[in-house]
Amino acid sequence: MSGLPIDPDLVARHNAPRARALAEDYDALGSRLARGGVDIDAVTARVAAFTVAVPSWGVGTGGTRFARFPGPGEPRGVFQKLDDCAVIQQLGRATPAVSLHIPWDEAPAAELRGHAEALGLAFDAMNSNTFQDHPGDARHPLSYKFGSLSHNDPAVRAQAVAHNVHCIRIGEALGSKALTVWIGDGSNFPGQSHMGRAFERYLASMEEIYAALPEGWRLFSEHKMYEPAFYSTVVQDWGTSLLAAQSLGPKAACLVDLGHHAPNVNIEMIVSRLAHAGKLGGFHFNDSRYGDDDLDAGSIDPFRLFLVFNELVDLDGPGFAPAYMIDQSHNVSDPIESLIRSADEIRRAYAQALLVDRAALEAFQGANDALMASETLKAGFRADVGPILARARADAGGAIDPVAAYRASAYRARVAAERPAAQGGGGGIT
Amino acid sequence: MSGLPIDPDLVARHNAPRARALAEDYDALGSRLARGGVDIDAVTARVAAFTVAVPSWGVGTGGTRFARFPGPGEPRGVFQKLDDCAVIQQLGRATPAVSLHIPWDEAPAAELRGHAEALGLAFDAMNSNTFQDHPGDARHPLSYKFGSLSHNDPAVRAQAVAHNVHCIRIGEALGSKALTVWIGDGSNFPGQSHMGRAFERYLASMEEIYAALPEGWRLFSEHKMYEPAFYSTVVQDWGTSLLAAQSLGPKAACLVDLGHHAPNVNIEMIVSRLAHAGKLGGFHFNDSRYGDDDLDAGSIDPFRLFLVFNELVDLDGPGFAPAYMIDQSHNVSDPIESLIRSADEIRRAYAQALLVDRAALEAFQGANDALMASETLKAGFRADVGPILARARADAGGAIDPVAAYRASAYRARVAAERPAAQGGGGGIT
Amino acid sequence: MSGLPIDPDLVARHNAPRARALAEDYDALGSRLARGGVDIDAVTARVAAFTVAVPSWGVGTGGTRFARFPGPGEPRGVFQKLDDCAVIQQLGRATPAVSLHIPWDEAPAAELRGHAEALGLAFDAMNSNTFQDHPGDARHPLSYKFGSLSHNDPAVRAQAVAHNVHCIRIGEALGSKALTVWIGDGSNFPGQSHMGRAFERYLASMEEIYAALPEGWRLFSEHKMYEPAFYSTVVQDWGTSLLAAQSLGPKAACLVDLGHHAPNVNIEMIVSRLAHAGKLGGFHFNDSRYGDDDLDAGSIDPFRLFLVFNELVDLDGPGFAPAYMIDQSHNVSDPIESLIRSADEIRRAYAQALLVDRAALEAFQGANDALMASETLKAGFRADVGPILARARADAGGAIDPVAAYRASAYRARVAAERPAAQGGGGGIT
Amino acid sequence: MSGLPIDPDLVARHNAPRARALAEDYDALGSRLARGGVDIDAVTARVAAFTVAVPSWGVGTGGTRFARFPGPGEPRGVFQKLDDCAVIQQLGRATPAVSLHIPWDEAPAAELRGHAEALGLAFDAMNSNTFQDHPGDARHPLSYKFGSLSHNDPAVRAQAVAHNVHCIRIGEALGSKALTVWIGDGSNFPGQSHMGRAFERYLASMEEIYAALPEGWRLFSEHKMYEPAFYSTVVQDWGTSLLAAQSLGPKAACLVDLGHHAPNVNIEMIVSRLAHAGKLGGFHFNDSRYGDDDLDAGSIDPFRLFLVFNELVDLDGPGFAPAYMIDQSHNVSDPIESLIRSADEIRRAYAQALLVDRAALEAFQGANDALMASETLKAGFRADVGPILARARADAGGAIDPVAAYRASAYRARVAAERPAAQGGGGGIT
Repeated sequence: MSGLPIDPDLVARHNAPRARALAEDYDALGSRLARGGVDIDAVTARVAAFTVAVPSWGVGTGGTRFARFPGPGEPRGVFQKLDDCAVIQQLGRATPAVSLHIPWDEAPAAELRGHAEALGLAFDAMNSNTFQDHPGDARHPLSYKFGSLSHNDPAVRAQAVAHNVHCIRIGEALGSKALTVWIGDGSNFPGQSHMGRAFERYLASMEEIYAALPEGWRLFSEHKMYEPAFYSTVVQDWGTSLLAAQSLGPKAACLVDLGHHAPNVNIEMIVSRLAHAGKLGGFHFNDSRYGDDDLDAGSIDPFRLFLVFNELVDLDGPGFAPAYMIDQSHNVSDPIESLIRSADEIRRAYAQALLVDRAALEAFQGANDALMASETLKAGFRADVGPILARARADAGGAIDPVAAYRASAYRARVAAERPAAQGGGGGIT
Repeated sequence: MSGLPIDPDLVARHNAPRARALAEDYDALGSRLARGGVDIDAVTARVAAFTVAVPSWGVGTGGTRFARFPGPGEPRGVFQKLDDCAVIQQLGRATPAVSLHIPWDEAPAAELRGHAEALGLAFDAMNSNTFQDHPGDARHPLSYKFGSLSHNDPAVRAQAVAHNVHCIRIGEALGSKALTVWIGDGSNFPGQSHMGRAFERYLASMEEIYAALPEGWRLFSEHKMYEPAFYSTVVQDWGTSLLAAQSLGPKAACLVDLGHHAPNVNIEMIVSRLAHAGKLGGFHFNDSRYGDDDLDAGSIDPFRLFLVFNELVDLDGPGFAPAYMIDQSHNVSDPIESLIRSADEIRRAYAQALLVDRAALEAFQGANDALMASETLKAGFRADVGPILARARADAGGAIDPVAAYRASAYRARVAAERPAAQGGGGGIT
Repeated sequence: MSGLPIDPDLVARHNAPRARALAEDYDALGSRLARGGVDIDAVTARVAAFTVAVPSWGVGTGGTRFARFPGPGEPRGVFQKLDDCAVIQQLGRATPAVSLHIPWDEAPAAELRGHAEALGLAFDAMNSNTFQDHPGDARHPLSYKFGSLSHNDPAVRAQAVAHNVHCIRIGEALGSKALTVWIGDGSNFPGQSHMGRAFERYLASMEEIYAALPEGWRLFSEHKMYEPAFYSTVVQDWGTSLLAAQSLGPKAACLVDLGHHAPNVNIEMIVSRLAHAGKLGGFHFNDSRYGDDDLDAGSIDPFRLFLVFNELVDLDGPGFAPAYMIDQSHNVSDPIESLIRSADEIRRAYAQALLVDRAALEAFQGANDALMASETLKAGFRADVGPILARARADAGGAIDPVAAYRASAYRARVAAERPAAQGGGGGIT
Repeated sequence: MSGLPIDPDLVARHNAPRARALAEDYDALGSRLARGGVDIDAVTARVAAFTVAVPSWGVGTGGTRFARFPGPGEPRGVFQKLDDCAVIQQLGRATPAVSLHIPWDEAPAAELRGHAEALGLAFDAMNSNTFQDHPGDARHPLSYKFGSLSHNDPAVRAQAVAHNVHCIRIGEALGSKALTVWIGDGSNFPGQSHMGRAFERYLASMEEIYAALPEGWRLFSEHKMYEPAFYSTVVQDWGTSLLAAQSLGPKAACLVDLGHHAPNVNIEMIVSRLAHAGKLGGFHFNDSRYGDDDLDAGSIDPFRLFLVFNELVDLDGPGFAPAYMIDQSHNVSDPIESLIRSADEIRRAYAQALLVDRAALEAFQGANDALMASETLKAGFRADVGPILARARADAGGAIDPVAAYRASAYRARVAAERPAAQGGGGGIT
């Protein structure tokens, strides 16, 4: 495949009959916002400038430990994954970069770079997989069954460190500027692991990785409460992630995945606290109700997503540049569609947060006017910013209704014919 | 393999040097209990009579959606699984029956029955798998991706019903007396499924299965809060399970898996309420901290397990006969060892509950003496009943220290040499 | 006070300068909805017909066990509470009825009725307080420290039953048609209470109350996971509430308080299940993040409130008539303002649910099109229905911006001058 | 009152008939432990040396926002509270120090010191109350309704700072060496408070308090997830508490209250992480199932308490000296009895942790032998260490069965006759 995966004419034909309604809705919203002194076009411009990376692994159908039910036309290999990512970007115009996972996406760098450039894509943060064994991969003769960077065997730790350095090297060749480290290390039973020493081993391994970072790179430590370990996890919450980032140095910062927290935790406050500590590195966006459900961003609790962006807009300023990435598992939907709408939901939350009247909010906060402060914030959330999102897409060459355009393109049927079918079956429990 | 999998002489040699210490500890505990009017031998006899079924799928190494790390000598097929179950029973003497999962354990009934009888094993409740697709299985041409018994396509529902009836028929041939139905049906997004109609379809399917139950059989409906579905689950809690069991009739009852509840839920109260409703069907024992972690029973919250057994001992009487089964996933331990100790932990909780002075407890409850009621209950829990458990095992031909005896037997090394190694790798997410 | 508490001219003067913007926004929304075949005026009419009861206890400042910080002009006695409720109704036009709590609101029925009628208010469900002692109240010589309807002392149970019957009699005189029973009965320690017998005592007490119900009345059993009891609660979840309602008879049904559930529980599914069982009695609306936080409806998770209303709109039809009530604690805001906006938020969720294209939704569900089903549902939620809510209020004589109108009226300053100040200080822990 | 509150002869008469059984049980346990190379007397000596402070506020009956049900003979004022604390210490011999709360316990320091010394009591960490208003207290003219140390009004912050400094000065006069700061500051609604600025104000206030610390003092920051604030809390988790302690300096450390965490959180890991960071300041012991339930230590999840002590024993060494305090609310039991048994439960967990074979544990951890590591840890927990606890008490002059001795003393009836009865009634909600 070369060039854009969807015929641009199709997009234009898709947009034409929708343009008038969009113009009406955009104008009506613009009039309403103007009454409050807000210039809708300025908001649209900021929304258009906001982008979020998509994960290469997100374009395949996900699964649970019980089963994986493949969809048609799943990508085989990283080049097909990039093709699918290009569809998402072409129609949604919010996702110009892809985040790779190694060794899943191992391939010659020049070919990768060439393929991506032809598709108009760049590469975001690299991800290292040391939570699975890689049978047949000469770089991974040792098992990660009992951990990786915190393993009690120095040889396993060295292997895991080397793999992370390897990921950095690949990333350098691809133009990436960051490495995200998520490990599954932990224990299933009280006593299985010495929690203090495991953390010390983790820190020592991370120091080696940190030392290998090129100039201008960042290292993200990602915490998660549980899974795959079910009693203790080495980097279990933002406090531990913070300790690690503090210990490593200025290139290290914390990555917040929205689904990696204990029940009821106030995530937007963690965002605020990490920013206070100078250690807010970035995000893995998704949504969840129970655990690390990895559902489409904004699909379960859109107000929570808005509250995170409320902090981000508040924190915005010179030098504030967290990394924005999606990390989801698409088990029952077409991954391309889920990623298109997730990027859209993320932009929606951003647009709503931009509409908050911050001067009024600050005044109500200063007066302890809890009700009006709350209402001022919600006024942003209540705004139906769909026209702003569509306008930003359309102006950039994307589709007014990108899922509809995608379906009209028959892209899925086309690749299903080209790509061999995967076999479903059991997940981890069988 | 025929006869017992471990040389009985080995067990005897293992027990001999441990007999004296056991006798001392047993006598000391007996003296202490006698002071309170409790006959330790009577307790031991009741403990010895208590058994719990092991799951055929539990003797293989489990995994998560991230990875599965196989152990050595994993059983290939149901006959090897039975061999492993026989080890558990021979050394622990608490698990004389095995619960099968179909189609995983599909095999000619006569052969199964013969193999089990030679090993001294019987068959407990049957389990039907309609949460995975079974490629290549002619009985399952249709996918369960979007549900099984509650699927909106009547053909899928019919296939799932037929499979459950098939499981009943196998169970009849094997001497089983119950079918456990757990489905993964649900939805990942609000709106994906009509929650009311999905439940109605589930009930209609269950009615068909119910109608196929032989005389003397029971049908267990098992609820679970979430996973594999991450927004809604058709049978999500005991209230829904109760509605189903009420609707179906007297052969239907509810099965309580200890890991299938919302955070903080008081499970022993659910036991009490289901018993009140006449619908307490049985248990899937395991332990968990976060979700359906499927860890070894009693390993995370042993007091909770005790509180469940406190209810069971209190409820015990003519006609009270819940089904007791283990349902665990052994990701980091030898499954045989985990099942041996889990059965032991379950008996431990039972023994502790038997030691509760119920007359005193009732008196304190009647006097609203919260502190002494609480202390009376905990007195049972605090008792170190290890000597009772060991005595019950040893008297029945088992091992005083069954894990040590198992390791001494070198059974795992033997089967590892005989059985081909499994390949590890990704779970559902790759 | 007689007649409306706020000068109607003030409302008119408040509305006049806001009318034009409202008309513009209403027309713009109407045009957009019309494109999808929806008649905005029909939606507005349904919204205007939807009402929710306010709690008499909600107009006083709430508190926690740590402290209560009174606000100015708090009502002294039920007549002043009714005055405050009349303000809420006059400006918001969504809350024409008040729910009383006895003995807090004990007063001669004729006076109560007269006062309410003069204010344009009616009486909704009665509530009985048996979770506190009432020193000096001759009807309550015995303490509820260890329970009420489930107490192990028959004399306490009889006192609690008698009080509930007393509440019914008051309700009859006031035109109420329902009794809501919420008890705090439970235990703080495992062993303190026999969970099974406590439930049986509760049922026996409820049967006596049920027997005293007049024709046409309903009895609501309200569950709550915990608090004030911290280990077990007699009516802890909807399953137990369902058992009670089933056992009592057709006049009994379950009341769902949105804050009374375990973490992560899917409340809209409980709504669906109770409706299936014919036992959905009604709601106590509020919002919460951690426990029974009793915050303003829709302030924490507005999408959850929408999902509940999505079920209600779906279930709507002949004979479907749950009771809708607010139950909140206003610790940091003016209670009148919080109740005005909470009623508005409830109507907002209702309006959004009315906008869902149910034919399209059903088609997507039938096709297992998870993404489009999800998007179809969210399209309703994303709509900014503020103009519909304002139009419904204004057409009924209420205020376009009711909180602003309330502030302009200086009602709070007026009653603060008339009513003695309350003293703050400790909550339950001092 | 002067001298010990209970006649020492009564204790001796209580112990005499129990001595023989204790000796038997102690010897039996000693024999068993000796088999594993453990000297029971050495364990008993360490247990006897372990003490925990009791809270002055814990000897009054607690309550919830719904109600407080007073018990007989509740202490009026700090001197009577000290009398009750002396009973706890005399019979249990584990609680020689009392933690005061100011202004609740405000009294002339010399009198306080004299009264305590006569009772054999000392003073532990001071606690400052800025979560309630103190009407009539000239030091607190301003309200804490909207916060204290983080309030947006500098005058309120100054008042709260001054009160904390005042607490330090009182503590100096009493021989205390630490100040614990817990504030209720936070917000109930998104938007009500600017989370970042509130934290900055908190830090600035804490710096002023820190500057007032005498030589040798420690300052404990205590986090809590929620309550009394129900949306955001300024010091919501250990991460934020750590940031504060890091920012303040070496005298500042974090205090872990066992009930202040999100559901499912692994508290023992937080202990490990804070120790790693050099910021583990101390504990507030209690137990809970749902929220900050403040139940008796070890009554709900005794294994969790053990796991915390497993970390503490592991961390123990030169310079390791966290502060151990109980913080509970006794709503349904006699507070003296609850505190006696809570201190006993805490020592039980400590004794069990001392019994863990740490060399074996470390070897199993090093071999990734998850099962035997887990079993090695649980072997400590399973030990019935009651005889060790009783021996430690009796040898120090306490009671073998302290609750029974307390009841035999009729202390409660005596003080009930002397102290006026409190009136029950509503909590914060009325």
